[in-house]
Amino acid sequence: MASTLLSARDLRFLLYEWLGAEELTERPHYAEHSRETFDGALELAERVATDHFAPHNKTNDTDEPRFDGEQVHVNPEVGEALKVYAETGLSSLGMPESVGGAQVPHVVSSACNAWFQAANLGTSAYPFLTSGNARLLLEHGTQEQIDTFVRPMVEGRWTGTMCLSEPQAGSSLADITTRAEPAEDGAFRLFGNKMWISAGDHELSENIVHLVLAKLPGGPPGVKGISLFVVPKYLPGPDGAPDERNDVVPAGLNHKMGYRGTVNALLNFGEGRHTPQGRPGAIGHLVGEAHQGLKYMFHMMNGARIGVGAGATAVGYTGYLKSLAYARERVQGRPAAAKGPGAPQVPIIEHTDVRRMLLAQKSYVEGAMALVLYSARLVDDTLSHEDARERERAELLLDVLTPIVKSWPSQWCVVANDLAIQVHGGYGYTREYDVEQHYRDNRLNAIHEGTHGIQGLDLLGRKAVQDGGKRLSLLVEQARGCVRRARALGGQEAEHAELLESALERTAHTAAAAWSGGRPEVALANATPYLEAVGHVVLAWMWLEQSVAASGHEGAFYDGKRAAARYFFRHELPRTGPQFDLVAARETTVLDTPADLL
Amino acid sequence: MASTLLSARDLRFLLYEWLGAEELTERPHYAEHSRETFDGALELAERVATDHFAPHNKTNDTDEPRFDGEQVHVNPEVGEALKVYAETGLSSLGMPESVGGAQVPHVVSSACNAWFQAANLGTSAYPFLTSGNARLLLEHGTQEQIDTFVRPMVEGRWTGTMCLSEPQAGSSLADITTRAEPAEDGAFRLFGNKMWISAGDHELSENIVHLVLAKLPGGPPGVKGISLFVVPKYLPGPDGAPDERNDVVPAGLNHKMGYRGTVNALLNFGEGRHTPQGRPGAIGHLVGEAHQGLKYMFHMMNGARIGVGAGATAVGYTGYLKSLAYARERVQGRPAAAKGPGAPQVPIIEHTDVRRMLLAQKSYVEGAMALVLYSARLVDDTLSHEDARERERAELLLDVLTPIVKSWPSQWCVVANDLAIQVHGGYGYTREYDVEQHYRDNRLNAIHEGTHGIQGLDLLGRKAVQDGGKRLSLLVEQARGCVRRARALGGQEAEHAELLESALERTAHTAAAAWSGGRPEVALANATPYLEAVGHVVLAWMWLEQSVAASGHEGAFYDGKRAAARYFFRHELPRTGPQFDLVAARETTVLDTPADLL
Repeated sequence: MASTLLSARDLRFLLYEWLGAEELTERPHYAEHSRETFDGALELAERVATDHFAPHNKTNDTDEPRFDGEQVHVNPEVGEALKVYAETGLSSLGMPESVGGAQVPHVVSSACNAWFQAANLGTSAYPFLTSGNARLLLEHGTQEQIDTFVRPMVEGRWTGTMCLSEPQAGSSLADITTRAEPAEDGAFRLFGNKMWISAGDHELSENIVHLVLAKLPGGPPGVKGISLFVVPKYLPGPDGAPDERNDVVPAGLNHKMGYRGTVNALLNFGEGRHTPQGRPGAIGHLVGEAHQGLKYMFHMMNGARIGVGAGATAVGYTGYLKSLAYARERVQGRPAAAKGPGAPQVPIIEHTDVRRMLLAQKSYVEGAMALVLYSARLVDDTLSHEDARERERAELLLDVLTPIVKSWPSQWCVVANDLAIQVHGGYGYTREYDVEQHYRDNRLNAIHEGTHGIQGLDLLGRKAVQDGGKRLSLLVEQARGCVRRARALGGQEAEHAELLESALERTAHTAAAAWSGGRPEVALANATPYLEAVGHVVLAWMWLEQSVAASGHEGAFYDGKRAAARYFFRHELPRTGPQFDLVAARETTVLDTPADLL
Repeated sequence: MASTLLSARDLRFLLYEWLGAEELTERPHYAEHSRETFDGALELAERVATDHFAPHNKTNDTDEPRFDGEQVHVNPEVGEALKVYAETGLSSLGMPESVGGAQVPHVVSSACNAWFQAANLGTSAYPFLTSGNARLLLEHGTQEQIDTFVRPMVEGRWTGTMCLSEPQAGSSLADITTRAEPAEDGAFRLFGNKMWISAGDHELSENIVHLVLAKLPGGPPGVKGISLFVVPKYLPGPDGAPDERNDVVPAGLNHKMGYRGTVNALLNFGEGRHTPQGRPGAIGHLVGEAHQGLKYMFHMMNGARIGVGAGATAVGYTGYLKSLAYARERVQGRPAAAKGPGAPQVPIIEHTDVRRMLLAQKSYVEGAMALVLYSARLVDDTLSHEDARERERAELLLDVLTPIVKSWPSQWCVVANDLAIQVHGGYGYTREYDVEQHYRDNRLNAIHEGTHGIQGLDLLGRKAVQDGGKRLSLLVEQARGCVRRARALGGQEAEHAELLESALERTAHTAAAAWSGGRPEVALANATPYLEAVGHVVLAWMWLEQSVAASGHEGAFYDGKRAAARYFFRHELPRTGPQFDLVAARETTVLDTPADLL
């Protein structure tokens, strides 16, 4: 029976028939690999996700983490699953060989990760946060920091967090007040409160490595005065093993609507509950240079944003497959064409409106998965392309795509989950089925790692205009390559190519029009509609890419891709028209409405 | 401090400055009433909802109903609230004087009801289902049935349900198998299983009056063979008081994502657990004529559908007000125009994207409330207009509006709740705040009382074409009356009038185009996009009505109406363009995609 987590067939299509994952093995960086090692990793991921992650997805929801005032208790099945994950080598899969990783390409490890996100978003967050943390230290940490902190994370023994927000400073990081005081041996003592810390405290791993934003005394104000520190829960002893308890303690948990498998904690640094090396204050080590913390953190954050989009996609995907399976089995009513009550009832997939809800989901989740893996493939280019210009090109393209990879699945794969509930009817609204939990779990993704609105400001306010708009131009140029290939094919592909070409023109012209009046606040008032419109254009591009890759192939799988592409081009892409109109017209209704009229 | 449930000011505006509620007192049917009695009812509703319904909204969610195998246990605060509700006369407010009701106009009682739905959707369902049940019996029951069952419901001592669905027959009522066997004294014995029964069992009232669809032996197949029975939980004794236990028992509860205050039960009729009058079988009485049950039930159902839309609206409305209050208080970040980190942080309502999310919510929830009360006002015309042609006109207009009143708030007031979460940021995703529960509670509304898809089929497949399309023509004609009044005002109102006029033309032309090809399955394949587009057109009409009513008045309240109207016309109405295009083009992507391609 086919999995209802993801479609292995679809992943193989994306990886091998479109993104050329196998060709990556010709590059020195991935020379140790082959189609066989990729397939082995994918099958291992599917198996471990299915057997060890999916079974406790519901208990993660019903038995959410508890804080007894001292310690955080997490559903023990999470720990058991993470043990298997580490033992089977999954925690080191995508990590560099230099620290004992298997150095599998990002495009492959992202496909592997999707299995875990589809199976259990809450449990998957622990290793994925850890790998983001490890990558940051690998990039910016000292060799000693790498040896001390990264290796045990790669081995899956320690976990990691990112500590940015504070109660008074969520989206506004300039306003953090956690301070780091220089202390003995070049170390620092940290004092402050951090909030919304995913995986912030638990007993699932031997140690927790916090990456913490804090301010050094006398530094510049605002974001320019933020530095980054690595602060372990237990200070490593002389042998590297966790030893003395550091002065960082959980102060409470957030009780969420969903995504409950992942602890979300308030952490107090330097509260004085513990006195490492004889006095209060959380001992931390500066990562990289002083006052560069936000820049480093954004490196991790960009990866985390793509990870959020990937998680949203995976949860949307499993909801689609579950509602598809339900629609094939559930017998109810008769199609309009059947005459009279004597006719036998049919599976609900025979009702056109049910197929509409399924085809919409398919177009969202398979399109989003294409975008996620396309982005991962760009990461591989940044790391391994032989040509420096191509590396830079990939970097820029990834940069402009990041707000879209983060926000589009976080919006539309929740819509997919909403439709998955609707396909199930009343059953979908009950906790006896999975889809209501997916809908709740997935709702977080438009909030964390930069809200939806912040992604809009990032796209229209930064990525679309920076350096003369070269990132956005690159995106348009890249998509036009696909337009040319599709045109050459004729038929439906050529027809869609023309629609995409128009949409790409609007993408570029609308950004220019938005900024044409010289008042940034007017342009940015419509940043969210612009983000959403460009997201749909990029997804149409992804569908054209898939159509081109499917071209010339016969069979239900490829016909299904063509049907979903057609759905996206006819039912979805036209939504962008009114959104672009608004942005181009520099519409000011919102800007002009003062707070007291609300 | 202003309420965060609803805006009393807005309700007064809608009732008195637009819908002419006070003028209704000139009609004989409402001659006992005055502005003072209306205001008294509204104030009472606000006070009881605020003091007795809102405080246990959260406990309804956390302490959901339990079934111990025999009996259903509901949060006792529900019962206490319902006691106050009955004691203060609220249960009889809208009921006819003939059964001891206060006979307040629908438009006023609907506004009163909204306070309870905003305060506690789960608790409010008990009296609202009861009143729907009572109204059906008043219309179709015998005098004896009215005396026996309706009076105790009007007094708030008994509650009522509607029992339609069965495990194998949800949307497909033709397939119900519950049977009613003729028995002693002209009564019937019912045998069968009913599912999804809201308020189906509990100990909150002295008795429960079930209205049950069942089939008589030898009747025609399908929907034409369905009859309606009244089946009390306890058989009334000679004095009318609940006496012997009838053979209807709860068989289990559904555990829902939200809306948990309302028990949702599986009920077994004639299981044999109880043996009323000495033998198994649930004793019931035929309501009206045999085989006419579905028609009667749809009378109640249409009221219930408007009630669903009203509930969705109220929950959207309170989410808006709560996120508005939060946005005024929560300080975070600086507007784009403020230079440097030295500037003080501002309330987040100063951020344009936050105001966008608030203005969008305002346009959805105030627009939906206008539609709900407009529909209630039509009910008043059907009951009390002196001119028979006007009564029929109101009936037809209500008929075509019903799928929209049901579906539009069920879709867009969930979007409002989604935005309310987003305004709160991470806090909105936690159960410490109210908005995540509103989002969960509200999600049911697109499912029950006819799914979203079924509303689409009802509109495009029935209401838009029945009797030569006269209902839809009437809707267009009615809205054009508003267009003319708005044109005469000039300014923004005239501008919006032109936009609405175009949208009305498209509403009519698109229905004609959809049906022009002679293949119903092609037209109906796009019934949902048509429903959604017409819904937006109707909401634009509601905003133009409000703008006309606000015209010539100054001050923040009226300026706020104008700002929300502008938002709706500029940001929302244009969404209908691509939807109408699809329907008019008789788009067949979904229809042409067979199940095996999904």
